[in-house]
Amino acid sequence: MNFEKYNFIGFEADYDESEIVFVGIPYDGTASYRPGTRFAPLAIREASLGLETYSPYQDESIEDLSIHDAGDMILPFGNSERVLAKINEYASKFIDDGKKLFSVGGEHLVTYPLFEAVYKKYPDMLLIHFDAHTDLREQYLGEELSHASVIRLINRTLPNKSIYQFGIRSGEKVEFEYGKNNLNFYPFHVNDANKVLSELPNDVPIYLTVDIDVLDPSVLPGTGTPEPGGVTFLELLVAIKGLKNKNVVAIDLVELSPHYDQSGVSTITASKLVREMILLFSK
Amino acid sequence: MNFEKYNFIGFEADYDESEIVFVGIPYDGTASYRPGTRFAPLAIREASLGLETYSPYQDESIEDLSIHDAGDMILPFGNSERVLAKINEYASKFIDDGKKLFSVGGEHLVTYPLFEAVYKKYPDMLLIHFDAHTDLREQYLGEELSHASVIRLINRTLPNKSIYQFGIRSGEKVEFEYGKNNLNFYPFHVNDANKVLSELPNDVPIYLTVDIDVLDPSVLPGTGTPEPGGVTFLELLVAIKGLKNKNVVAIDLVELSPHYDQSGVSTITASKLVREMILLFSK
Amino acid sequence: MNFEKYNFIGFEADYDESEIVFVGIPYDGTASYRPGTRFAPLAIREASLGLETYSPYQDESIEDLSIHDAGDMILPFGNSERVLAKINEYASKFIDDGKKLFSVGGEHLVTYPLFEAVYKKYPDMLLIHFDAHTDLREQYLGEELSHASVIRLINRTLPNKSIYQFGIRSGEKVEFEYGKNNLNFYPFHVNDANKVLSELPNDVPIYLTVDIDVLDPSVLPGTGTPEPGGVTFLELLVAIKGLKNKNVVAIDLVELSPHYDQSGVSTITASKLVREMILLFSK
Amino acid sequence: MNFEKYNFIGFEADYDESEIVFVGIPYDGTASYRPGTRFAPLAIREASLGLETYSPYQDESIEDLSIHDAGDMILPFGNSERVLAKINEYASKFIDDGKKLFSVGGEHLVTYPLFEAVYKKYPDMLLIHFDAHTDLREQYLGEELSHASVIRLINRTLPNKSIYQFGIRSGEKVEFEYGKNNLNFYPFHVNDANKVLSELPNDVPIYLTVDIDVLDPSVLPGTGTPEPGGVTFLELLVAIKGLKNKNVVAIDLVELSPHYDQSGVSTITASKLVREMILLFSK
Amino acid sequence: MNFEKYNFIGFEADYDESEIVFVGIPYDGTASYRPGTRFAPLAIREASLGLETYSPYQDESIEDLSIHDAGDMILPFGNSERVLAKINEYASKFIDDGKKLFSVGGEHLVTYPLFEAVYKKYPDMLLIHFDAHTDLREQYLGEELSHASVIRLINRTLPNKSIYQFGIRSGEKVEFEYGKNNLNFYPFHVNDANKVLSELPNDVPIYLTVDIDVLDPSVLPGTGTPEPGGVTFLELLVAIKGLKNKNVVAIDLVELSPHYDQSGVSTITASKLVREMILLFSK
Amino acid sequence: MNFEKYNFIGFEADYDESEIVFVGIPYDGTASYRPGTRFAPLAIREASLGLETYSPYQDESIEDLSIHDAGDMILPFGNSERVLAKINEYASKFIDDGKKLFSVGGEHLVTYPLFEAVYKKYPDMLLIHFDAHTDLREQYLGEELSHASVIRLINRTLPNKSIYQFGIRSGEKVEFEYGKNNLNFYPFHVNDANKVLSELPNDVPIYLTVDIDVLDPSVLPGTGTPEPGGVTFLELLVAIKGLKNKNVVAIDLVELSPHYDQSGVSTITASKLVREMILLFSK
Repeated sequence: MNFEKYNFIGFEADYDESEIVFVGIPYDGTASYRPGTRFAPLAIREASLGLETYSPYQDESIEDLSIHDAGDMILPFGNSERVLAKINEYASKFIDDGKKLFSVGGEHLVTYPLFEAVYKKYPDMLLIHFDAHTDLREQYLGEELSHASVIRLINRTLPNKSIYQFGIRSGEKVEFEYGKNNLNFYPFHVNDANKVLSELPNDVPIYLTVDIDVLDPSVLPGTGTPEPGGVTFLELLVAIKGLKNKNVVAIDLVELSPHYDQSGVSTITASKLVREMILLFSK
Repeated sequence: MNFEKYNFIGFEADYDESEIVFVGIPYDGTASYRPGTRFAPLAIREASLGLETYSPYQDESIEDLSIHDAGDMILPFGNSERVLAKINEYASKFIDDGKKLFSVGGEHLVTYPLFEAVYKKYPDMLLIHFDAHTDLREQYLGEELSHASVIRLINRTLPNKSIYQFGIRSGEKVEFEYGKNNLNFYPFHVNDANKVLSELPNDVPIYLTVDIDVLDPSVLPGTGTPEPGGVTFLELLVAIKGLKNKNVVAIDLVELSPHYDQSGVSTITASKLVREMILLFSK
Repeated sequence: MNFEKYNFIGFEADYDESEIVFVGIPYDGTASYRPGTRFAPLAIREASLGLETYSPYQDESIEDLSIHDAGDMILPFGNSERVLAKINEYASKFIDDGKKLFSVGGEHLVTYPLFEAVYKKYPDMLLIHFDAHTDLREQYLGEELSHASVIRLINRTLPNKSIYQFGIRSGEKVEFEYGKNNLNFYPFHVNDANKVLSELPNDVPIYLTVDIDVLDPSVLPGTGTPEPGGVTFLELLVAIKGLKNKNVVAIDLVELSPHYDQSGVSTITASKLVREMILLFSK
Repeated sequence: MNFEKYNFIGFEADYDESEIVFVGIPYDGTASYRPGTRFAPLAIREASLGLETYSPYQDESIEDLSIHDAGDMILPFGNSERVLAKINEYASKFIDDGKKLFSVGGEHLVTYPLFEAVYKKYPDMLLIHFDAHTDLREQYLGEELSHASVIRLINRTLPNKSIYQFGIRSGEKVEFEYGKNNLNFYPFHVNDANKVLSELPNDVPIYLTVDIDVLDPSVLPGTGTPEPGGVTFLELLVAIKGLKNKNVVAIDLVELSPHYDQSGVSTITASKLVREMILLFSK
Repeated sequence: MNFEKYNFIGFEADYDESEIVFVGIPYDGTASYRPGTRFAPLAIREASLGLETYSPYQDESIEDLSIHDAGDMILPFGNSERVLAKINEYASKFIDDGKKLFSVGGEHLVTYPLFEAVYKKYPDMLLIHFDAHTDLREQYLGEELSHASVIRLINRTLPNKSIYQFGIRSGEKVEFEYGKNNLNFYPFHVNDANKVLSELPNDVPIYLTVDIDVLDPSVLPGTGTPEPGGVTFLELLVAIKGLKNKNVVAIDLVELSPHYDQSGVSTITASKLVREMILLFSK
Repeated sequence: MNFEKYNFIGFEADYDESEIVFVGIPYDGTASYRPGTRFAPLAIREASLGLETYSPYQDESIEDLSIHDAGDMILPFGNSERVLAKINEYASKFIDDGKKLFSVGGEHLVTYPLFEAVYKKYPDMLLIHFDAHTDLREQYLGEELSHASVIRLINRTLPNKSIYQFGIRSGEKVEFEYGKNNLNFYPFHVNDANKVLSELPNDVPIYLTVDIDVLDPSVLPGTGTPEPGGVTFLELLVAIKGLKNKNVVAIDLVELSPHYDQSGVSTITASKLVREMILLFSK
């Protein structure tokens, strides 16, 4: 007899035999406006039960990959530094074990300790960042460790030219100027992303981080700081397919806040994005 | 003194004098993921009260047609076979009485007995199908009678080349292959539909079935299995207008699930679609 | 490293070492009015994370018991008979393995095959039934296998005087008369339940089935057919504590429909009820 | 073949043969705080489909009465005076035709023209009023015709001692003093209502008006100005049953605002109240 | 010590020193379909706290302007004529004091007394109108003073050729014909607006009125009469930027109904529109 | 001309002339289960507009008091220690200026710095605590500064016998034992509170802190950790009226989370509680 245990659909491999690990990071402690991303990982798994495992867009199935659903990280609460240290510890274990890593947030700050775990192994890595917001603040309301500063934090370690930003449409004037002057900065839309990404070398290690609010709020209302004027689902799909056959070593999808969309469409959309994004790990 | 009886707005003809019958089919017994389409027919009627009877898109008014709102079919519960037989009985009566038929689901399985009633009278008919899903399964979780297999069921009777599918973007690999290899299969979008449909002969009887999830979930979140990457309202409007001045004999609109969209927009959109689609019956 | 796998909180035993099995039965195929109970088992587990494992009402903790969370039954769809056979197969396995069984529905019809599995081993059993509705119909819209007839179905096997009903406040006139004339029938409230139950012999095997709509809709709006005029949470707690130190061998909690209560309170209440009810298994 | 036309369940009589007329009055034009009662009449009819026609509380069935569901009044918009005149016209017709009248609002101001129609025929009538609010203002924000002044308006015609108020728990100091000094005023609860009402003479004509916010918001959140500290469903039931076998000639139920309670419980509760209240017309 | 007083973010000037006044008009008394716009002004202010003050689209910040948030007008209730007189009184004061005026509705009827206040000072003004509906009715259900007739009311004073309509996609046949034959009428989309507007003379006084339902309901579900087939946020942004460097003297944004969109996205979108529109006042 | 600025209704005094200060503390940074209390202060003010200023329960009006609505504290984010220091700074200023203080949270942790400000001036004070939870943890997930430990934190300073707890029905076993053995501990209900409180000496300074989840979730679903089995609105009203004519110097109301109750009833209830509680300041 079999039982439904609410893993993400088709992610059925044991840890040891798996090539890819899928893990939830239910943390939203620095959300400044509307919290709730802590509920995303379980919601995405539940929504995945209504999903086909086959992608007609890529003509591939997640059943062809060997993916382990590890469950969610168990995190302390209230003190960001301790949380980040713990996330880094989990992620480092996966990376050390030779796994490719697909993480689901939680808020965007979780990308910082994930990045550090990946960077330790792949110091020549690139960061590909889709988002509505620059996340380039030096601090936010006096805090350095904030969802609004995560790319700036990473940029302390990772060189300017290893960072690509797509779809940005909100931030302070100084953030926009910093992006334009220093990074590979493609604001307002993702029309250039497919071409830019497909021209990257095939062997350089790539970390893909997608803040789901890069999508237009009509497509995905369930997020803490929705920004009108965003991209469609198909535009994002075309964009990330620029990474097909590249050396993607880690991916995260952050900032889904399921309770803010009672139709469930946001979570269903995120779940479908997980399917399309995790297929980037296939060769 | 007049009283509001919550018919669809402008559908004021008596049965005998009417050319067209509008009827609700509140059945969702095989919904596998998120049920609720049983609530659609009444919701659509209520929403229609906020609708203009005039369509500026077609420069016509539903008041120019003679339409009878019959109310909803009264159906047994729990046993699909008995339900389908009952639906067929209702529909056959309408068809036998020489009516054109506009049905509102309910789930997509209701199209099967409707089709049978229409086919009996019009064996040379074509089926025009808009949907996000192929609905071409041979069975679904062991059941042949399922919303996910309705077109396959019809295809047992209706020849391959009499079936047109538009907008499909989700299914199993075998379903996509079946569609591509056998049917008039136009997946992913509806851009070709207007041209394809307007080139059909003017006298062949046509059954139009629209699963409302062909629309993008941003446009219509209120459905059981929303599929990101769909079409806009105007794209669908252009598509179905390819049937203008054709010999449309029956239409259905299925899979609206009003409770999943608390803004009411999904139901309002469905209601407006009823107006635009029923004008296809005008000459 | 540990991971959150969304078992019910504190239900951490392996199957072999466990005394009690907790299982979800996500079936709502005969719901006539408002479906949605299929979503209850996972929702209850998620809500349990906000729950204390200690009950101040009973001064006991679920951590003192040895409980295995098996996940959910995987069920075919659309054909009630096949579903019930499958549920019976799962339940019989648990009972044969000597487990006490706590099931979470799903609709009330699931109690029928559970009962059959329990009855096979304990033919001298009693059924204790809390509900707003009699569930004593001979058929419902032509179907014998219905949530509205589940107690009548059981009553074909189990003698009248082995059935106790509490809290009933809705039904047809013939159902009320049948209950009054044949069963141990305590309608409208549960004020007598504690006394009646605590006077039962200590060794007779007991199956407790609680349709959660016995609670007043103010306390629990998240159910398919809410009935005003019901009981409070504390009244139900006092009532079921009449079974303390009795020989309870199986329990179910059915008819929670989480989506109908967006505050989440209904699911939280159901989750707390699971804690209080499963402590009836302790000695 | 029969069709569901969404009348209130069991209200199947033709107008001419009926003893009682049920009519909706979808007007909320003077709602000062949160509008939405215009949606109540249709919502109550839809919810009634999940209701039993038999009341175990009164051991009677609405099928034993002869009730015609007339649909809703069609009202002009924006100008209160014209609306009230129109309501009076409809109601006078019913009263003149010898019908007993059950009206569903809409806001409480609709009771004013209903009262006038009833009073014209029964000048010795009593008004029994259940509400959370006094509705005794001389004007509200400069308007005399307001939901907050409806009883005061009636009181211009109907003598002080012909008005009974139960359950009042909100108002201005002057309103409370007016009530205490002039009317039959029973504030804060309805504990005395059954006794007071059952001691009324059996032949005096009675108009019963129930503002549904007399119920506690836990029982009925779906209303425009919910007032904590109200009565339970069963308390209200006991109270109105004091009118059993009295000469009730007209009843209204007002101020349900369905959209404010997405669980649907408020509308279901109102629907069940309609069943219990309309049985007061039986002898 | 500072305190948050929930002004619109960045609107910090005192009245006397300000160039621009921002004011709320919480009136929805003639809403015929779904009321609720009265809640918009406060909701927009609250949502603005999650907004950046910098617009990357215009490379300007609202902090560069001198804007006073006056709070909301306090209006009588129930009688449209008195309400409109009061709005006119408030607006005339602002205009007389030499302020530019940004008003947030409330329903569209509020534009009529605002227009009158502006017209008195600027009789050579133009009216630029974005909307899904013509608002050109001579009356609505017998009322001349209606949200559905506001442009027709203005047109009694303002010449045909001083009125520009963009994005209209719903109305009666006679309304469409009136618009086409008499006004500057650009129905169905806003593609021509930027060009048409930028070719207006720079010194003519301009009143911009935006009914937010010109946006597609996918972008903005939170409005009383959503109309599928509308424009995107970016299309509207491009359109109104045709007014950059023109002599805009007054702006209003009407018909947001926050409660109909529980994701909050509609209010956030309106708040961002306020930012983009008020920057039209900058030179 | 007057403008609505959304102060709490009737709180119209200037700071200097006021006896009482009302202030919001929108902080929920340590919420472990479901965040959202940061939205409470503004929501309570908005809901207060539908409230009468007169309390029939106490036959007094808030207009008889001199109350200043200060707005909300502006707080840093993410670091609990800095937040608490800031709250203490605000509160100390009010206390030093001789004000009585009514604070609205936010989460319960905000009571700690408020207590410290009050205790500094009134070291002989008593703390009266209504709550569903003990809040007596030594730490929570490793954090000492947590909503779940706020009373334990206070207890480091304030002697056991100066702390009164009412209504507690959830916690760990050690917490219940600590409460029973050390504090004035009245669990499960508030039936004794009126008597206990009214017997306190009239001159001892009293701080009243009410976690709104002491109310039953049927009465108040809008809170982060609802606990079934709580008290009614009227029971709480009777309880706190035990403090009438005592020397109450500070009050707070915490843990309302408005978004979890879309009916708005929770916020309306909280708003009415503010009215009833602030009248405790009157003599």
